Amino acid sequence: MMTSLSSLSIDHTHDPALRSWVAGANEESTEFPLQNLPLGMARVAGSTGAFRPFTAVGDQALDLILAADLGVFSAALTDVLRACEGQGLNPLMAAGSALRRECRHALVAVLDERADAEWPGKLAGALVPQSSLQFTLPCRIGDYTDFYAGIHHATAVGKLFRPDNPLLPNYQWVPIGYHGRASSIGVSGQQFRRPMGQSKAPDAEAPSFGPCKRLDYELEVGALVGRGNALGEPVGIDEAEDQLFGLVLLNDWSARDIQAWEYQPLGPFLSKSFATTISPWVVTMEALAPFRRAFQRPEGDPQPLPYLQGETHLASGAVSIQLEVHLQTARMRETGAAPHRLMRSDFADCYWTFAQMLTHHTSNGCNLQPGDLFGSGTQSGPGPDQGGSLLELTQGGKQALTLPSGEQRTFLQDGDSVALVGFCEAPGRRRIGFGPCVGTVLPAASAA
Amino acid sequence: MMTSLSSLSIDHTHDPALRSWVAGANEESTEFPLQNLPLGMARVAGSTGAFRPFTAVGDQALDLILAADLGVFSAALTDVLRACEGQGLNPLMAAGSALRRECRHALVAVLDERADAEWPGKLAGALVPQSSLQFTLPCRIGDYTDFYAGIHHATAVGKLFRPDNPLLPNYQWVPIGYHGRASSIGVSGQQFRRPMGQSKAPDAEAPSFGPCKRLDYELEVGALVGRGNALGEPVGIDEAEDQLFGLVLLNDWSARDIQAWEYQPLGPFLSKSFATTISPWVVTMEALAPFRRAFQRPEGDPQPLPYLQGETHLASGAVSIQLEVHLQTARMRETGAAPHRLMRSDFADCYWTFAQMLTHHTSNGCNLQPGDLFGSGTQSGPGPDQGGSLLELTQGGKQALTLPSGEQRTFLQDGDSVALVGFCEAPGRRRIGFGPCVGTVLPAASAA
Repeated sequence: MMTSLSSLSIDHTHDPALRSWVAGANEESTEFPLQNLPLGMARVAGSTGAFRPFTAVGDQALDLILAADLGVFSAALTDVLRACEGQGLNPLMAAGSALRRECRHALVAVLDERADAEWPGKLAGALVPQSSLQFTLPCRIGDYTDFYAGIHHATAVGKLFRPDNPLLPNYQWVPIGYHGRASSIGVSGQQFRRPMGQSKAPDAEAPSFGPCKRLDYELEVGALVGRGNALGEPVGIDEAEDQLFGLVLLNDWSARDIQAWEYQPLGPFLSKSFATTISPWVVTMEALAPFRRAFQRPEGDPQPLPYLQGETHLASGAVSIQLEVHLQTARMRETGAAPHRLMRSDFADCYWTFAQMLTHHTSNGCNLQPGDLFGSGTQSGPGPDQGGSLLELTQGGKQALTLPSGEQRTFLQDGDSVALVGFCEAPGRRRIGFGPCVGTVLPAASAA
Repeated sequence: MMTSLSSLSIDHTHDPALRSWVAGANEESTEFPLQNLPLGMARVAGSTGAFRPFTAVGDQALDLILAADLGVFSAALTDVLRACEGQGLNPLMAAGSALRRECRHALVAVLDERADAEWPGKLAGALVPQSSLQFTLPCRIGDYTDFYAGIHHATAVGKLFRPDNPLLPNYQWVPIGYHGRASSIGVSGQQFRRPMGQSKAPDAEAPSFGPCKRLDYELEVGALVGRGNALGEPVGIDEAEDQLFGLVLLNDWSARDIQAWEYQPLGPFLSKSFATTISPWVVTMEALAPFRRAFQRPEGDPQPLPYLQGETHLASGAVSIQLEVHLQTARMRETGAAPHRLMRSDFADCYWTFAQMLTHHTSNGCNLQPGDLFGSGTQSGPGPDQGGSLLELTQGGKQALTLPSGEQRTFLQDGDSVALVGFCEAPGRRRIGFGPCVGTVLPAASAA
């Protein structure tokens, strides 16, 4: 079997003419045509069995361990997939990118409508409707690092605090990031209580403790780390791409009032750590290959320092992903009103690529482990209606949004659901999507 | 068997007259008399077996699984200790504080010189010299949070940047903290390469990438979390003490030049994530009971908000631990010169207690997991010679220290070893210590 040599290679698995015998995989509207094949961890809803690795095809999902039992994969890949049961995708991440590509190619070989006639029958028992599954986090996330690579967000937020000097001097040189809280990351469907916390009104003498009054979302893309590196062994920019496993959508829920009071001098802490929601399907770097773009800095901006450059990387380091935020209030849900789209942006506008973030992260010798998560920072677009958070869309809470239901929002209310949407389109290419990334705000716990 | 009801209770296991039949445990100089009984994970050096739980007695260490096999513990505790093999102390942490106290009481019962005459013979094969052991991290650390609760450090560092206004307005209200990097935490004996990174000279037009020029240590105390809490379920201040498993020494190595350039606006990142060193022995909260002190704020400072108060907590929330930093250069090591003590401080001066940090951490609903690590922030004393970092002792690198070897230091040089020392003393009480916490700086990797 031909396996492409890098996650950037385009091969027959990206052919837009590729069709599957799985019902629904060829429909124009599906997020999961055969060209996508994202990976996730799930079990049949209501069962108490261990979570197992699955891929998505149309509105179905294929149990990869059952598929392995039927001889779809090599012995090496079969062992690795079995090791994922109850553990998450970490063993597959640790196994390196070649085995992940082998997985993609083996899946296409049996799911292609031109596959040997035996496969539809053999695999029928391994396919279940996605709607029948319960998902969990795709992997055990050891460390979570949240970057700040959305320059339009950094500029818009900076303007709220420093109108004359929105971007700090380090922004164009350093892929700014900070360590996030791993324990409170949940998968789409996460419901969380409005956080309690300290905040201080500008005119108050002392802070007070109570429910967050300025609860917000942040639209981000997440990257999951593949093999990782040993402590003291930096990953150069030319090797960084190979260390990325795949991407997810990420909602970095934020308590703005808590954040404003707590964040000096060591950064955000409790304003973020109460919940972070990611999508259950990991879209692999291979699936994203047709949507890569050259890394480009705006005219006049400095080029990155040499350790963050690299020829291949500059030629195709960026990824174009259309990103959207949709809001559905409790009243909208009750009346059957669809979630309302608040904005759209393109991940190709991100100021740093994930490969640059990874190389920067390891440049001091810091070790990354399989399944570590990076957040991209909020992905706002350049326009005022493209803010990736309510903070931006409402000018810091000063201009309420009016929803089609007639309700107004400056920040999130109890019962609000936020859905992130991500999909990739390119001329002559099959559209692929990221699947759901939804979270819902519950009322605060009464104060202790 | 009588088991005390709280980690604050003083009972017969704290009796200063308590003596053990284990050689060395009764010597005045030992850090590990029977009153201490810290917990750690080790194996015989050179073996490839799984790491197992041990306790320290004098200069010996007792294999707790072998002890369990000999009937020292209850069936429930035996199961939990066996589950620790190859995993770290997390199962014991998850089991709650009562089982930890049972472990202490059972160990005293068999190690006491008044124990049944059979025990010395039975346990002889389970005792090995500590010097024959290889240690690993005491537990799997899911998330690491570094606080900033040393007010003398915060003031001294603040003065370097803001002479007129060293403490930020939130400092006396919020236990300031940030998420740290868990993957690069190592145990005493850790050697790490001087980090590479971006820094920018004040007069330079652009930053440059190279080896850190201002490498520093930070003297901290670490706390390991016991049972933990579910997402969305805050831990009140009256329950917080019971969630603490024990304390370790912690060296938060810091690259000051990288930190100065990167830390705005999201806090320290690569300036810290290259290495963090902790001591292998966890001194349990029970062992620390005789050294508890009332939580006291300096005259005129505001009292904490109600969620961070609590009667028991105010009466005994602080812990008095004598802390020291010792430096040994490569030349000192070669000439056989002992490490040189640079300072001493008392952990009782910490501005927030670990219980307050824990309650604050969970106040927004954030979940803690067994084995999560908190750092206290740098524990400087009030005097100028009590700085817990070179940044303080050298006035930001302006005043070099002269060592007994004649060498000078502003920041750390390659080959330097830093040893943290911690011990507890109180009138009428047996002195207990924390054991070694040493780390050594290796030369930087050549630039990638």
